[in-house]
Amino acid sequence: MKIGFIGLGHMGNPMVRNLLKQGHSLKVYDVVPDLVKKVVGDKCEAAASVAEAGKGVEVVITMLPSSPHVRNVYGDRNGLLASIAPGTFLIDSSTIDPLTSREVAMDARAKDCHMVDAPVSGGVAGAEAATLTFMVGGEAKDFETAKPILQAMGKNIVHCGGIGNGQVAKICNNMMLAIEMIATSEGMTLAAKLGMDPKVFASIVNTSSGRCWSSDTYNPYPGVLENVPSSRNYTGGFGADLMLKDLTLVTEAAKSAKHPVMLGAIAQQIYQKHSIDGNGGKDFSSVILQYLKL
Amino acid sequence: MKIGFIGLGHMGNPMVRNLLKQGHSLKVYDVVPDLVKKVVGDKCEAAASVAEAGKGVEVVITMLPSSPHVRNVYGDRNGLLASIAPGTFLIDSSTIDPLTSREVAMDARAKDCHMVDAPVSGGVAGAEAATLTFMVGGEAKDFETAKPILQAMGKNIVHCGGIGNGQVAKICNNMMLAIEMIATSEGMTLAAKLGMDPKVFASIVNTSSGRCWSSDTYNPYPGVLENVPSSRNYTGGFGADLMLKDLTLVTEAAKSAKHPVMLGAIAQQIYQKHSIDGNGGKDFSSVILQYLKL
Amino acid sequence: MKIGFIGLGHMGNPMVRNLLKQGHSLKVYDVVPDLVKKVVGDKCEAAASVAEAGKGVEVVITMLPSSPHVRNVYGDRNGLLASIAPGTFLIDSSTIDPLTSREVAMDARAKDCHMVDAPVSGGVAGAEAATLTFMVGGEAKDFETAKPILQAMGKNIVHCGGIGNGQVAKICNNMMLAIEMIATSEGMTLAAKLGMDPKVFASIVNTSSGRCWSSDTYNPYPGVLENVPSSRNYTGGFGADLMLKDLTLVTEAAKSAKHPVMLGAIAQQIYQKHSIDGNGGKDFSSVILQYLKL
Amino acid sequence: MKIGFIGLGHMGNPMVRNLLKQGHSLKVYDVVPDLVKKVVGDKCEAAASVAEAGKGVEVVITMLPSSPHVRNVYGDRNGLLASIAPGTFLIDSSTIDPLTSREVAMDARAKDCHMVDAPVSGGVAGAEAATLTFMVGGEAKDFETAKPILQAMGKNIVHCGGIGNGQVAKICNNMMLAIEMIATSEGMTLAAKLGMDPKVFASIVNTSSGRCWSSDTYNPYPGVLENVPSSRNYTGGFGADLMLKDLTLVTEAAKSAKHPVMLGAIAQQIYQKHSIDGNGGKDFSSVILQYLKL
Repeated sequence: MKIGFIGLGHMGNPMVRNLLKQGHSLKVYDVVPDLVKKVVGDKCEAAASVAEAGKGVEVVITMLPSSPHVRNVYGDRNGLLASIAPGTFLIDSSTIDPLTSREVAMDARAKDCHMVDAPVSGGVAGAEAATLTFMVGGEAKDFETAKPILQAMGKNIVHCGGIGNGQVAKICNNMMLAIEMIATSEGMTLAAKLGMDPKVFASIVNTSSGRCWSSDTYNPYPGVLENVPSSRNYTGGFGADLMLKDLTLVTEAAKSAKHPVMLGAIAQQIYQKHSIDGNGGKDFSSVILQYLKL
Repeated sequence: MKIGFIGLGHMGNPMVRNLLKQGHSLKVYDVVPDLVKKVVGDKCEAAASVAEAGKGVEVVITMLPSSPHVRNVYGDRNGLLASIAPGTFLIDSSTIDPLTSREVAMDARAKDCHMVDAPVSGGVAGAEAATLTFMVGGEAKDFETAKPILQAMGKNIVHCGGIGNGQVAKICNNMMLAIEMIATSEGMTLAAKLGMDPKVFASIVNTSSGRCWSSDTYNPYPGVLENVPSSRNYTGGFGADLMLKDLTLVTEAAKSAKHPVMLGAIAQQIYQKHSIDGNGGKDFSSVILQYLKL
Repeated sequence: MKIGFIGLGHMGNPMVRNLLKQGHSLKVYDVVPDLVKKVVGDKCEAAASVAEAGKGVEVVITMLPSSPHVRNVYGDRNGLLASIAPGTFLIDSSTIDPLTSREVAMDARAKDCHMVDAPVSGGVAGAEAATLTFMVGGEAKDFETAKPILQAMGKNIVHCGGIGNGQVAKICNNMMLAIEMIATSEGMTLAAKLGMDPKVFASIVNTSSGRCWSSDTYNPYPGVLENVPSSRNYTGGFGADLMLKDLTLVTEAAKSAKHPVMLGAIAQQIYQKHSIDGNGGKDFSSVILQYLKL
Repeated sequence: MKIGFIGLGHMGNPMVRNLLKQGHSLKVYDVVPDLVKKVVGDKCEAAASVAEAGKGVEVVITMLPSSPHVRNVYGDRNGLLASIAPGTFLIDSSTIDPLTSREVAMDARAKDCHMVDAPVSGGVAGAEAATLTFMVGGEAKDFETAKPILQAMGKNIVHCGGIGNGQVAKICNNMMLAIEMIATSEGMTLAAKLGMDPKVFASIVNTSSGRCWSSDTYNPYPGVLENVPSSRNYTGGFGADLMLKDLTLVTEAAKSAKHPVMLGAIAQQIYQKHSIDGNGGKDFSSVILQYLKL
């Protein structure tokens, strides 16, 4: 297929490479020319602008850092929707707030374009290995259209319901993850301080009612699991500042919906503090350092 | 074996019955005479006092509601330790604070008695079915002594390290559980309010990084899982006021250890509010009602 | 002076009347025609549009409900800045986020217009009595220009520093106020539950280190002070949903600034819960009902 | 009068000196003999034990660090109540939990002794200058008995109602104080980060609805007020660890009363974190350092 791709950062770059591997032809754009240069080549043409990237293609995929970027790329006077051909299929893989996803999709429908939101989990490593999970929001028919394209870049392609629900699934899951990571940090460090061996405590929790992904697969206490960020000084993994971004999104979405999320709001504050303490670049499991002196 | 058993409430009663089934002889005591009458019979003799229950037996098991009760039963002028024969083996299955466990065990050693703390999980149903989990704190040798006795009443007998660590394991696990239950409540209700089907959201979380026992085994959102309290109006299960008791224990223990547990403290407050709102007798997953109007 | 006034709601209406009393001539606009009809009359002309309200006047005052409204009224293609005469002086009395204030003021400068932000406190009663407090952000010279105009509507006209600082002062003050109101609610209800007479406790706090405006001037415990909302079933005063709006603004501003505000975030959650419990229309001191059964 | 005095630490020592200045005769005791030596002299006799300090005196005053100390000094087999003469008047100036105050007073009544609880505020400086505030719980008649004695050591002698209410008043006031100090810290640092001059912000808050003792009399932001701990690197004043002790007492009392205190619980956690970060010895206004890099 002929695909436009906008946003060539840490995630977009390997996603483009995987699309090329599957034989697609691409027109690519980024505001930073150097990022474009890194991927142009055989079957991968540089577009001079956002509008240009959307012309003469069947599908456009966007991978952008925030809601305002998505609004601008799609909605500006020089944006995608102003010039796109009716019937072009749109996939936004940015992680943004669900309301923006829904508004942009509505604007797209006014131009006779179908759209899905398809945020990812799996990070840069998943993007490179084409093992990303895509959480897709959109009509059933549109999900079927998107699925084979996304399979070039990911392994799990999950339908979450109507447009915007990909975002809802991602940010609500990540809110739970953040809270559970802090819960695990508090439980592990308190058990250790009260005299238990952290490995023994983890093994008990992991066969009991306190178990969670943060305790059994990604334990933040150094030395409990191998091959996780806590065993290599919190390098690699999913950055604390990225978690903070998702917590900010989800608490804003909760405010818009007038829904209380007490622990979510406090997790956002704890990650905020963790970030200004200088830990934003470390893996998000490093939040245990708020409780543990190494 | 000849076993003394003190504390014949909802848990103690079926535990005594299971010990009898395995052929042990018992001397039993409770401050409430009616509770004693319910179990006395063949090979199960009523003791007239705490001290009496500890005489002429090889082992004493206690199952009491709180730390002050444990202090009194063991430490009083008319308590167990004042009259017990050296060498009597002591098992305390109460859920209390680890410091009390350690102090009482130290007093027991001064009388040449070995002691383990062995709090349980599994509730009344587990006590009746002899499928309790015992989290045992004590020396390795003492754990080996306790194990066959506890197997008459439970299925998983876990060694958690030195004396008091049974309590540490239980209350730290339950703190994580309480936080994760609230995290699941916030995530499920927010996803639903933002437009997702709760079952679809649960299925995504449960194969993703937000999964935890509260989401995949005991989901608090009505209709997501069958045969859990949320599917029967939060009856049965583990009472919210029992969770509140454990949260109070763990936050006190954290204060004694001068260790911060921000989310643990807030979970304690949320369950406190839930209780004064009149929900203390419901299953603890009913905390979702703080976020959901049914 | 000839003044344009946009936004004629509960606050704007009495502000317009007070400007007229001081002899100013007005051109007024609101999207709701009925609100316009309520004020037009001698020296008070209806404008047919936002742009119209800004023509042929020396000053424009805006009193709008939120940041997006302010962006639209000033920034739209048909907005104020597109048609305004250079040199027109602009006063925005809306309570919005400081970043928006600063951006709009920058756009205004590009049209050779000076602007101040001047959010108010004092509520509808203050607007009617011309006793509002105006917290003014802008250059010293612009503050001097604004001051006599604002004095027609208020009593305290305070210079808070550069543009946007009026908003900063208001939302940071109100965050402190919300936290202190909850602190007072917790202190008063706990003291009462522990056996103290609420009036005696209040009198002790109010001469001690726990005193605050919420305890000595606006006590939320019924019967402690006369002539405050708590003495009349929380009617009148400053609505809980308005406080929630300010808490939402301030926590967003904190996120933009990457600054932690733990208690501010929790206060936002508590007011959010209070609102969905059905109390949004009551005075904000009714938050004590989260702790007190009346 | 002939007065027994038990507890000769930082507070007890100057309190004893002030009683002597007013012409009273004392019998003094402390477990640390050196502390006794510091005060013995003319009209101030050393007692060999707690029991001894209570013999041949009309009044006993105790000034002890915690509830268990109070229980031991009064309740032990060798304690005050075991040997005291009926009719001896008892004043406990320790800050402890109200339940303990009430229990000890009940035990005292069984020995025909009247008792008041009379915790203080004002710190070491107030003790030295005889300007302490005494918050007194007890019957009206007992308050009248205590008042002239306490006036030798303090300036404000406040009757708070029945026995235990002195404690309630103190710990509930201090909970409000702690929350308000953190509220002021969040408000001041956020306003500064958003671009306001801290002095200007403080002056606005202090004439507005956000004002509190922490903002207008003891502002934690360096340079806003003179002669407060924040102007001298948080030395002197009321130690953060003493505030932590009071927050621990009040949150325990709330748990016993089954009363939620969400912000109180979080303030306790924030001071806990502040303490393990190494700031326990600084003035409690140093909690602003959790938000401010100096």
